[in-house]
Amino acid sequence: MDSIVVVGSIALDSVRTLWGESNEALGGSAVYFSLAASHFARVSVVGVVGRDFPREHRHMLAEKGIDLGGLKVLPGRTFRWVGKFGRDLSDAKTLSTQLNVFSKFRPRLDAQQRKARVVFLANIDPDLQAGVLDQMRSPALVACDTMNYWIASKPEALRRLLARVTIFFVNEEEAKQLSGQPNALRAARAISQWGPRVVIVKKGEHGALMKAGERFYAFPAYPVESVKDPTGAGDTFAGGFMGYLASSGAYDDVRHLKRAMLYGATLASFNVEDFSTRRLENLRRESLDGRFSEFLEALAVSEDNAKRAPLII
Amino acid sequence: MDSIVVVGSIALDSVRTLWGESNEALGGSAVYFSLAASHFARVSVVGVVGRDFPREHRHMLAEKGIDLGGLKVLPGRTFRWVGKFGRDLSDAKTLSTQLNVFSKFRPRLDAQQRKARVVFLANIDPDLQAGVLDQMRSPALVACDTMNYWIASKPEALRRLLARVTIFFVNEEEAKQLSGQPNALRAARAISQWGPRVVIVKKGEHGALMKAGERFYAFPAYPVESVKDPTGAGDTFAGGFMGYLASSGAYDDVRHLKRAMLYGATLASFNVEDFSTRRLENLRRESLDGRFSEFLEALAVSEDNAKRAPLII
Repeated sequence: MDSIVVVGSIALDSVRTLWGESNEALGGSAVYFSLAASHFARVSVVGVVGRDFPREHRHMLAEKGIDLGGLKVLPGRTFRWVGKFGRDLSDAKTLSTQLNVFSKFRPRLDAQQRKARVVFLANIDPDLQAGVLDQMRSPALVACDTMNYWIASKPEALRRLLARVTIFFVNEEEAKQLSGQPNALRAARAISQWGPRVVIVKKGEHGALMKAGERFYAFPAYPVESVKDPTGAGDTFAGGFMGYLASSGAYDDVRHLKRAMLYGATLASFNVEDFSTRRLENLRRESLDGRFSEFLEALAVSEDNAKRAPLII
Repeated sequence: MDSIVVVGSIALDSVRTLWGESNEALGGSAVYFSLAASHFARVSVVGVVGRDFPREHRHMLAEKGIDLGGLKVLPGRTFRWVGKFGRDLSDAKTLSTQLNVFSKFRPRLDAQQRKARVVFLANIDPDLQAGVLDQMRSPALVACDTMNYWIASKPEALRRLLARVTIFFVNEEEAKQLSGQPNALRAARAISQWGPRVVIVKKGEHGALMKAGERFYAFPAYPVESVKDPTGAGDTFAGGFMGYLASSGAYDDVRHLKRAMLYGATLASFNVEDFSTRRLENLRRESLDGRFSEFLEALAVSEDNAKRAPLII
């Protein structure tokens, strides 16, 4: 099983949705990713927090087996994000972003991390993402995410980065923005021509689309009736995906990529059921496997009708 | 194999999208439904056209084995719809609706149609839909569709109708409008409490969600890179679904309902590739089966990794 290095944000989020709110609760792309991926693989975090970062969060993450050796503590305050969601849960509205110590984040990998086989570059400045790759010896699998801000402000740096990446995770709207294409499929095709062999377009409640090689694989989201807080769903998806893939050890086998899509969706479905990382913190492997099996079964349509006993509704 | 009676519109559509246009081309819910369903089952149409309805359309439909004995010809002009789609293909903009003879449509079933086992009530006045059911002897399977206009103007009649329906097809936005619920899952649950044992929420390019019994089944759309004209996709989906289901003869077996979802999505994916009914007119069963198998294979995630040979991307 290969271990994963993740580089990204560690944040204290205050989020309001129609179903409640959280106040300075644990968040950040590296945190959501790690909590999801830790079910499958050893994860090592590269990130930065301020001196105000609560000790209990460190403990919780460490208890999950997440390596925090690369978590730097700087004088000052931890990154804070304040946002809200209306009825349309796909549309986060940022009320305030306080970068604090995150504005001084220059990722430095230690000797162990440089040797990691798998790396996930969460949504940060593409020049910093490239700087992480420069430090790595010879990773077998490089994956990254990005966001509208970098697409608009550093498109050239992002293009250069994508040429060095195998798996690219991107939101549907951002994929269209980045490629100038009118739909997710054409966007994925255009982006894949810049480098990534696998492009995954995340569509929130509508699931995700993967272009792998020359083919498309569309999967639904796991159906969740009561979404409380969608914050971190994309990074949780990526964590489930990359964690499973790292555990499989096979990075160009479509069977594993498809299973990874469903593990990503399953992890994300848990995450949105509660605020902050609450549901992920309490998620046991049995619950994860149970929902994954149920998801597989709901999707399964056998070629041969006679194969299974009828399920009467 | 049970035969299907479909009651709905026959239209001449003029549609403009960013990829071209059609002018007074064949359309209407009953037409799209019939063309899709005719691959699986015998379909009998109840509808009305004006004296201007082109003879070639009749011939084409008859050649597909679609029974037009219930197609009434009235003095006057055929129903016409003029619409356009922008970059967002989920959003049809109606430029003009000329009901013409369709405004005098009072569906009358002949003796043979009254005995049909399966009926699909496409989107018309819910009182007329109920009037069709009153004429039927004892159908084994009743399905219907509706639209925002009837949800807003005749909600009570629609509720009464739904109490008599087994399968309800509805767009995502309309499901939310009808139920007052914020997401597709809760909407499907609320609507199912009014009668339909199966509620299918159509989400266009994002696939469809089925609530059958107490469970949800989410499926993606078949990925289409070049959508030219989405007109009729929902009725084509329903036609593929109902046609397959009628051919299976098993109406409360989840396995068949799931296959029906994928056949509906496959038929719809062909329909949107060209304007009007062009692609459906030229669609051969081999092409349909080929794409269906490919769709199944892309979705398939086996429980057991070792079951299949690896597919390297």
